[in-house]
Amino acid sequence: MDDATGPDGQRRPAAPGVVRMRDVARTAQVSTMTVSRALKDPGKVSADVRRRVEEAVRAVGYVPNKLAGSLSSRRSNVIGLVVPSIENSLFASTVQGISDVLRQHDHQLMIADSGYSAVAEEAAIRAFLGQRVAGLILHDTTHTPEAVAMIRQSGVPVAENGTLTPTPIDMVVSYSNFDAAKAMTLHLARLGYRRIALVTLPASTNARSRDRQEGYRAALAEVGLPADPRLMLEMPPGLASGAEALLRLLEGGAAPDAIFFAGDVLAIGAVLECIRRGWPVPEKVAIAAFDNIDLLAHLVPPVTTLRLPRLEIGRRSAEVLLDRIQGRSTSRVSIDLRFEIIHRAST
Amino acid sequence: MDDATGPDGQRRPAAPGVVRMRDVARTAQVSTMTVSRALKDPGKVSADVRRRVEEAVRAVGYVPNKLAGSLSSRRSNVIGLVVPSIENSLFASTVQGISDVLRQHDHQLMIADSGYSAVAEEAAIRAFLGQRVAGLILHDTTHTPEAVAMIRQSGVPVAENGTLTPTPIDMVVSYSNFDAAKAMTLHLARLGYRRIALVTLPASTNARSRDRQEGYRAALAEVGLPADPRLMLEMPPGLASGAEALLRLLEGGAAPDAIFFAGDVLAIGAVLECIRRGWPVPEKVAIAAFDNIDLLAHLVPPVTTLRLPRLEIGRRSAEVLLDRIQGRSTSRVSIDLRFEIIHRAST
Repeated sequence: MDDATGPDGQRRPAAPGVVRMRDVARTAQVSTMTVSRALKDPGKVSADVRRRVEEAVRAVGYVPNKLAGSLSSRRSNVIGLVVPSIENSLFASTVQGISDVLRQHDHQLMIADSGYSAVAEEAAIRAFLGQRVAGLILHDTTHTPEAVAMIRQSGVPVAENGTLTPTPIDMVVSYSNFDAAKAMTLHLARLGYRRIALVTLPASTNARSRDRQEGYRAALAEVGLPADPRLMLEMPPGLASGAEALLRLLEGGAAPDAIFFAGDVLAIGAVLECIRRGWPVPEKVAIAAFDNIDLLAHLVPPVTTLRLPRLEIGRRSAEVLLDRIQGRSTSRVSIDLRFEIIHRAST
Repeated sequence: MDDATGPDGQRRPAAPGVVRMRDVARTAQVSTMTVSRALKDPGKVSADVRRRVEEAVRAVGYVPNKLAGSLSSRRSNVIGLVVPSIENSLFASTVQGISDVLRQHDHQLMIADSGYSAVAEEAAIRAFLGQRVAGLILHDTTHTPEAVAMIRQSGVPVAENGTLTPTPIDMVVSYSNFDAAKAMTLHLARLGYRRIALVTLPASTNARSRDRQEGYRAALAEVGLPADPRLMLEMPPGLASGAEALLRLLEGGAAPDAIFFAGDVLAIGAVLECIRRGWPVPEKVAIAAFDNIDLLAHLVPPVTTLRLPRLEIGRRSAEVLLDRIQGRSTSRVSIDLRFEIIHRAST
């Protein structure tokens, strides 16, 4: 079957744009100029006209060419987002927040996945700037110098949101991984735990893991507990990895009385291993996690964790970008959306 | 601080594009025409020239204006994807597959979230066509008539991938929800279970749930088991919802000996409720799930489920679109990527 032939056997028009603005005007019984005004600046026409035009747009299947509009103004209405992994549901929640706000303001979201690599992030940023995006949101806060230079030269506003970096390229909307890890470690110490272990993802490629390790050390120093290197593990992501960390720590020579997993999937893997072996939590060992994913509240026992404002980070990141793009603000911002400890039966 | 001033206090250029192709040419020590050729059609220059141009592009921070290029050819290099929920990790896996393939072929992905609404899907499709996307991928297979008409008129290729619909708009890459649900129900019947319950998400807004219900009924008919309406439940998504379905079925007047949850989160909620109450699985009741998410293999006991080709569906959807866009294929395709039953201790 020919490319230009639709599934119904009828020939399709070779190029888009066959339905024109004048078709909308005819259906809405207004002038073409009124249609143009209603689409560009709906506040300038009456509610009745706006409604008639909207209905006519839908009835005739009119598709305004946003691309041509954006070229003439040298800007698209697209926001580019780079996340370390699209498949990670923590980032998905931030994506949802961004998407909700952009949809309300007639902007589109384009997403790229860096696979936790700064070089891949740079390539995605280059591609986005090539599309003349109106703004960028970057989850990572460690970038190649080339990426930073490209963004600065483009003049495009950018919001970073992986951690509350003290040296943002432009704007930052996040929470402090240092403060959050410190608060949870202090929480465990106040409950009376004395040998508190920390398990993170590998810190060499992940600024968030490094900040969490430093927050943990700062808390131990504050309450006068020794920092035992045998109680700090870096593990790859995954449920099996959490189970393995649990066994290595408990069967090592320095068994902890509490383990703080700065990574939820790791914590879940550890609790499931305890269930499998019939080890009571927190009597055998207390377990705390980092992010309030739904499952932690339903595990047996429910797991103590931090509530981080993932969705709100997405929403606020989109809002500060739109404020800048639409000229409501010219200032750089650093927004700390904080966190909360959720105490449950596992500690 | 002024908008046009960078974080380092230096003024930024007001518009992008200050680094030009001739800067790349100078650095690479080739002509501007050679740079243009190397970027547009890398196969036409030598490997050495290609490498020098690539290094120069990176060194000077050159960003080709893809938007201008796409306007002149009336097509962008963007693929638009509409999923029912960005936050759902099953869709995230498909997104990852699409993203992997597109990145290799210098295409970008733009994602919209329909919130399971055909009207919101139509709005997203209109926005994408306005951006002159090169192709569309739609996870839902139920659309408004206006959306279908718009897509046909645009001539843009589209791949649907939520279920193996017999009436695709254009191309379909998926598995059959009917076949998968039928196969799992037959599997439970062959293990000797006689009162098999089915729990799905609400079917009125979800073609996948409807197909699964029909596959379940077809299996019961095939093995001569009666279809008891008390054994079919529709539940909202969520862990708590799975636990509630378990209790309603077991405490109702027609207690099942096996429950097939056509929704993984529901199945996990049910197994966690069994752990909490000390009910042995499968002795008290067998439990099967629909999608092979990692957690199911680590639950206690591990849960029988279906392995569905989520990542592969994403990859193949992107490939068939690129084949069409790049002129390697003119045919409509319907690709069934099948599934596999994974038998574990829960049944």
